[in-house]
Amino acid sequence: MTRRPVLGIVGGGQLARMTVQAASQLAVETRVLAADRDDPAVELASLVTIGDPSAEGVLEAFAALCDVVTFDHELVDPALIEALERAGHTVRPGASALRFSDKAHQRTTFGRLGLPVPDHAVVQEASAVAAFAELHGWPVVVKPSSGGYDGRGVYLVPDIQQTRIVLDQLGPRPNVVVEELLPLDQELSVVVARRPSGEAVAYPVVETVQRDGMCTELVAPAPVAAEMAETARTLALAVADTVGAVGIIAVELFLTGGRLLVNEIAPRPHNSAHHTIEGSTTSQFANHVRAVLDWPLGATDLRAPAVVMVNVVGPPDGSDPRTNLPAALAIPGAHIHLYAKASRPGRKLGHVTALGDDMDGALARARAAAAALGGSPVPTSQLS
Amino acid sequence: MTRRPVLGIVGGGQLARMTVQAASQLAVETRVLAADRDDPAVELASLVTIGDPSAEGVLEAFAALCDVVTFDHELVDPALIEALERAGHTVRPGASALRFSDKAHQRTTFGRLGLPVPDHAVVQEASAVAAFAELHGWPVVVKPSSGGYDGRGVYLVPDIQQTRIVLDQLGPRPNVVVEELLPLDQELSVVVARRPSGEAVAYPVVETVQRDGMCTELVAPAPVAAEMAETARTLALAVADTVGAVGIIAVELFLTGGRLLVNEIAPRPHNSAHHTIEGSTTSQFANHVRAVLDWPLGATDLRAPAVVMVNVVGPPDGSDPRTNLPAALAIPGAHIHLYAKASRPGRKLGHVTALGDDMDGALARARAAAAALGGSPVPTSQLS
Repeated sequence: MTRRPVLGIVGGGQLARMTVQAASQLAVETRVLAADRDDPAVELASLVTIGDPSAEGVLEAFAALCDVVTFDHELVDPALIEALERAGHTVRPGASALRFSDKAHQRTTFGRLGLPVPDHAVVQEASAVAAFAELHGWPVVVKPSSGGYDGRGVYLVPDIQQTRIVLDQLGPRPNVVVEELLPLDQELSVVVARRPSGEAVAYPVVETVQRDGMCTELVAPAPVAAEMAETARTLALAVADTVGAVGIIAVELFLTGGRLLVNEIAPRPHNSAHHTIEGSTTSQFANHVRAVLDWPLGATDLRAPAVVMVNVVGPPDGSDPRTNLPAALAIPGAHIHLYAKASRPGRKLGHVTALGDDMDGALARARAAAAALGGSPVPTSQLS
Repeated sequence: MTRRPVLGIVGGGQLARMTVQAASQLAVETRVLAADRDDPAVELASLVTIGDPSAEGVLEAFAALCDVVTFDHELVDPALIEALERAGHTVRPGASALRFSDKAHQRTTFGRLGLPVPDHAVVQEASAVAAFAELHGWPVVVKPSSGGYDGRGVYLVPDIQQTRIVLDQLGPRPNVVVEELLPLDQELSVVVARRPSGEAVAYPVVETVQRDGMCTELVAPAPVAAEMAETARTLALAVADTVGAVGIIAVELFLTGGRLLVNEIAPRPHNSAHHTIEGSTTSQFANHVRAVLDWPLGATDLRAPAVVMVNVVGPPDGSDPRTNLPAALAIPGAHIHLYAKASRPGRKLGHVTALGDDMDGALARARAAAAALGGSPVPTSQLS
């Protein structure tokens, strides 16, 4: 066939936008099912459906326009995906992998299979949270099993009264994961690209820095011993196999007391690998496209000794980073990505990647560019 | 202003497509004036006008939709551009720079200003070509002053009879440049990005390999002495100043008998810098966007000791390289770009870039991927 493959993406956010950019390099046609005309991926996709994937018939009508359907978020009910698969559509990742977006399913399955996870319980009642806290000590961490991201949906609760307040907010008898509050040495992430056959490649492990539960910076490679880095990659590949992931899967890890634990997975391109656009031979988005189309995967090696990424978020005063683009572009070697989203305080609007021979220099440049986009003056030390 | 700048591109070919890809990274909105719905840039631009820029009113209506207008080809009559400028539109490059697309104007002006060019004359009659050949010897090279690219419009004529045939084909009293046939040591190219203020950066000089007048491969940096490379960059920057270029300008050079001569310029992104997408810190397309929007230019340094590019052209049997994409993607480190154009024998459909520590290894990988796209088996030596 000389017809180009048509890749459908459910969700029109920045992950879809960057997937479209990567797909376009290989002349893969992309169609997007977006919630809103203003979503970041809409202006670049060759065909757009505006709709709610959970509404009757929307997903099936969209899938009929595509050869392969993939996702930029994990908010679609797996039962709907299963119905698509039964109707003969190619959905990657498929319903059984997407079920792992449910944190209770994740933890329970990983724990049962012997993958290292934090001590946890899946419960519905404040009394059960308190029983867990009796064993592990207050405070504990409570997460609804589905729906949260970027730190939304993670609650640190100090006692049973607060637990009741949190659970009441989550609705009647919510399914929640309660887990011990761990003293973290580092938060790490390994992103894996996996084909339908199971062939997979892991990117080098990165260290992520979180603020209020949202990733703000990452450094690659993570400053850990080579053996630990290898263990992390092996663990991530095992997780990807367990999940049956197809496409990109991000495996977020806790390093605590010298041990690696699987914190969470996300079965899609992920903020912890945005640095791969310039920092790796093959970006996570290019490998996501290759993997879901069942094409050979690309090399994941880092292209510099130090690769860093800093997120660009909406400044507190509501101003728009696009206004400050010329100042940020004046910083040499800062690779700036903006997602064409309206500015709101704290909203992820873009990211900056920098490569270098040493981490400190790269971090200084990326931070200066991100700060410039937020309206801060650029230190003259960064302008040469 | 928080509104995004809107960049208009006249022409919807692969240069426009790659400019849109680069602009999208900075959330610059792009609109395209394309001849045909199937043109490569159409599916990625946020708004498309289908029309002929030479037809009455088309260019002006398009410019009214854009903050800045630029080009992916130099086929628009500069008089139309001048009218746009008089009407208050921002056009970059402007009419006076675009006049240099006329080869007679180019040669005459460069010669008058003392820039090194091949011996030449601008003539209209076969007798005048013969008079030039009397001095320089047959055969001579004849080029119509406008309209040619990729080797179309370059004629090697051995005598006055053939000259008459060529001139007759070109219409009544065509303006042609006649020039001596030079023994070429190498063909080089330097691409320059220049802002309206005159601030400019030059990319490292590359050697191009032409077949039938069309660039088929390039290697960067060009295998020339450091001093010669520096002279080439200085010459290209002088040419860019002379032209008053804004945006990218490619300066094609002949190296003959140890001397550098300016062959031709193209006031737009150019095939001889496609390798900059992965091979340089800032691609020519990103710097074109920055330059025409009058934003700070990015670094042009090469990201590896050896960077090579091989064009992908339609195979003689008319088959489509997209069919062979999986085989080509199996070659590690080959960065494949396809332009989403229908396959025709000899038509430029894409390119492959490879980076490495040595030129031979990089060339072998890029050629193997380009050959695989054309349907050749991949040597197993390239698969690890």
